[in-house]
Amino acid sequence: MLKNLLTLDDLSIDELMTIIRRADEFANGTQVDFVGKVVANLFFEPSTRTQYSFEMAQKKLGMQTITFNESTSSTSKGETLYDTVKCFEAFGIDALVIRHPESNYFDQLANLKIPLLNAGDGSGNHPSQSLLDLLTIWQEYGRFDGLKIAIVGDVANSRVAHTNIAVMRRLGMDVSLVAPPQFQEDDYEWRDLDDVLTEMDIIMLLRVQHERHNVGMTLTKEEYHEQFGLSVQREKLMKDGAIIMHPAPFNRGVEIADEVVECERSRIFKQMKNGVYARMAIMERSLEK
Amino acid sequence: MLKNLLTLDDLSIDELMTIIRRADEFANGTQVDFVGKVVANLFFEPSTRTQYSFEMAQKKLGMQTITFNESTSSTSKGETLYDTVKCFEAFGIDALVIRHPESNYFDQLANLKIPLLNAGDGSGNHPSQSLLDLLTIWQEYGRFDGLKIAIVGDVANSRVAHTNIAVMRRLGMDVSLVAPPQFQEDDYEWRDLDDVLTEMDIIMLLRVQHERHNVGMTLTKEEYHEQFGLSVQREKLMKDGAIIMHPAPFNRGVEIADEVVECERSRIFKQMKNGVYARMAIMERSLEK
Amino acid sequence: MLKNLLTLDDLSIDELMTIIRRADEFANGTQVDFVGKVVANLFFEPSTRTQYSFEMAQKKLGMQTITFNESTSSTSKGETLYDTVKCFEAFGIDALVIRHPESNYFDQLANLKIPLLNAGDGSGNHPSQSLLDLLTIWQEYGRFDGLKIAIVGDVANSRVAHTNIAVMRRLGMDVSLVAPPQFQEDDYEWRDLDDVLTEMDIIMLLRVQHERHNVGMTLTKEEYHEQFGLSVQREKLMKDGAIIMHPAPFNRGVEIADEVVECERSRIFKQMKNGVYARMAIMERSLEK
Repeated sequence: MLKNLLTLDDLSIDELMTIIRRADEFANGTQVDFVGKVVANLFFEPSTRTQYSFEMAQKKLGMQTITFNESTSSTSKGETLYDTVKCFEAFGIDALVIRHPESNYFDQLANLKIPLLNAGDGSGNHPSQSLLDLLTIWQEYGRFDGLKIAIVGDVANSRVAHTNIAVMRRLGMDVSLVAPPQFQEDDYEWRDLDDVLTEMDIIMLLRVQHERHNVGMTLTKEEYHEQFGLSVQREKLMKDGAIIMHPAPFNRGVEIADEVVECERSRIFKQMKNGVYARMAIMERSLEK
Repeated sequence: MLKNLLTLDDLSIDELMTIIRRADEFANGTQVDFVGKVVANLFFEPSTRTQYSFEMAQKKLGMQTITFNESTSSTSKGETLYDTVKCFEAFGIDALVIRHPESNYFDQLANLKIPLLNAGDGSGNHPSQSLLDLLTIWQEYGRFDGLKIAIVGDVANSRVAHTNIAVMRRLGMDVSLVAPPQFQEDDYEWRDLDDVLTEMDIIMLLRVQHERHNVGMTLTKEEYHEQFGLSVQREKLMKDGAIIMHPAPFNRGVEIADEVVECERSRIFKQMKNGVYARMAIMERSLEK
Repeated sequence: MLKNLLTLDDLSIDELMTIIRRADEFANGTQVDFVGKVVANLFFEPSTRTQYSFEMAQKKLGMQTITFNESTSSTSKGETLYDTVKCFEAFGIDALVIRHPESNYFDQLANLKIPLLNAGDGSGNHPSQSLLDLLTIWQEYGRFDGLKIAIVGDVANSRVAHTNIAVMRRLGMDVSLVAPPQFQEDDYEWRDLDDVLTEMDIIMLLRVQHERHNVGMTLTKEEYHEQFGLSVQREKLMKDGAIIMHPAPFNRGVEIADEVVECERSRIFKQMKNGVYARMAIMERSLEK
């Protein structure tokens, strides 16, 4: 059976924990060598962190990488996603990593014969990001059950948020959600940032995604920071030992104060570091027999 | 002497067969290792299949690859092709693969001291594509002599067609040509698709190249499919064991019916697979002493 | 202490000579292997020579490379240089090579924990280019002291010129400067090309950078060539054994006559070759303990 990673919903708690523990072993220096394997990264949306983090993970595992950027490819000749992907399958690639702006793009790729790792689909899923978030929390607390997290920002348009809410609740975490009214979805209950701030073990901020919805955002940057940003004042009110997370890229002075980005509570750059380890774990898993 | 591969006209039948047989050995799992060799792929036109197929072939041979995309390079500072290529030569690159929109661009590169593999020049030649086509036919029939092929579509603007017509006739194949009147060239004799369909061992379809000639194409997609497309009905009329080929990318519903792309007769994805093996054979050949 | 290479001003004469001698050893075939090291090249400006020359140097040293092109990255989401670079640091990259249009961009990166090699900053510095120029001169003359060089062209906008003037004077070279009046800077003394031509050991031409300053350039290409270009006539007047250099890309027929580019005096393609060796020396140095 193919070791795809499309959504975290497909994984049992045991499978999740196996990946997180394996990622932590990579964080502690475990080395393996997949020499002779070639993997392809197909990015149909701009990315820095995710694309290069996958490339770094692959190179650390000794794999060879082919990275496809839509801008220089035949998709400008009108080729469909399915046909492009089947082409890479035909090349004899050992595993595929795909980011695509269409939610659930992978549904149309069900007949692929090689493992597929989802690096983000529209506003749907972002499983590798969620795994690195979980790894970061695991390293901090050694458990998930009972931890209180507030996810703050544009939840409606965030595949990171959707993926995290579901998996964190399955893992027994107490997830509170904060968002401007226009970004609140009906399915969830919404809280006020200042009401939950002091009780949280983790504050996870989301990026204001200017490029996805210029419409709908009626707040100025200053107003957003005032009402939903993790300001210097709010950081001081967080409880002892509580941490700050952000999937990045972040807007300094909007969802997070400039000075807070690298404060002692911040695990933001540790998340980036852990992204490589989490992706090493899922790349290794995809090539297991 | 440099082992260039500029056009197939430069190769004797013996040399062609040596490459095809070697490619077939790679298809059957032969491995070699060119560790320490660095090759560069210079693509001055968008490409998916050809560029990544070359990269895959190079990585399978253990070579290191540098891929140059015109969009991020100094050619935006007005540098000539000659000067860019001489620069890569100076770097100590072991072999160059070049695609360029100008037919016979390689004539201006005659003083290069390193092997040059042509990955497509304007509407001139596409030798590596033709070699993978020949490999696919060879694997199917074990011979070329006497095989009947119809090449269907925009022959005038297709470097694949030009290259294949010449080499297939040299190999003793019986090549029929079908095209809309505005894409017929005077040098060739033209047939009607439905007149030749039932006798052919191979139907090779060409892509309607919307991006190369919006003018000249007076047929709608539906009309093209009706008159020149391999429809579901036409596929049924093909003779037993006959196969379908297409260099891809293809336009589903235009030159080929959606359902026909992956039908039993179709060798389209096998061609993509063979592209890697054919390019392994020519990359290896280019580095031989 | 980090083995950065930001400007040549930071290096003592001894350190400079150590790098040049090491580069010359690489030119003579010395091999080393940094297997398992991963370096990243971040290019925020288009480049051919510098980017691919660094990649080639890294691959010849057995390093794995990640190359970042701004056009396909999250900087389109408004991320700052600092945050992008800190991200690559978090990934566990062993060394960073950066080109950026802002002069002294590296001042904002002072807290980096990994070595940084400057591949060009605005119109400020271009240390690796200068080192390859020095290597080329060293191979030619075996000394620097007392050599006469004229640097000709748009000195004001050239980071190559600024870097070379400073380091060459420190090395005891006699540097003359020639430029159209609008590209002359007050800090320097200016000479007439035809006054200095016959005495020079080296004529170093600069590119007319059309893309940096369309304004300011009042000469036509023909007028520039007439007044400041190394024409066929001027080449004949150079003294015996004198050489011609140009950082490239060059404009044939503007700052240099077409026929002069590959004449016997020209070391232009040798400079490109030496670029790989110079960059091998500084990449190696950056990873030394």
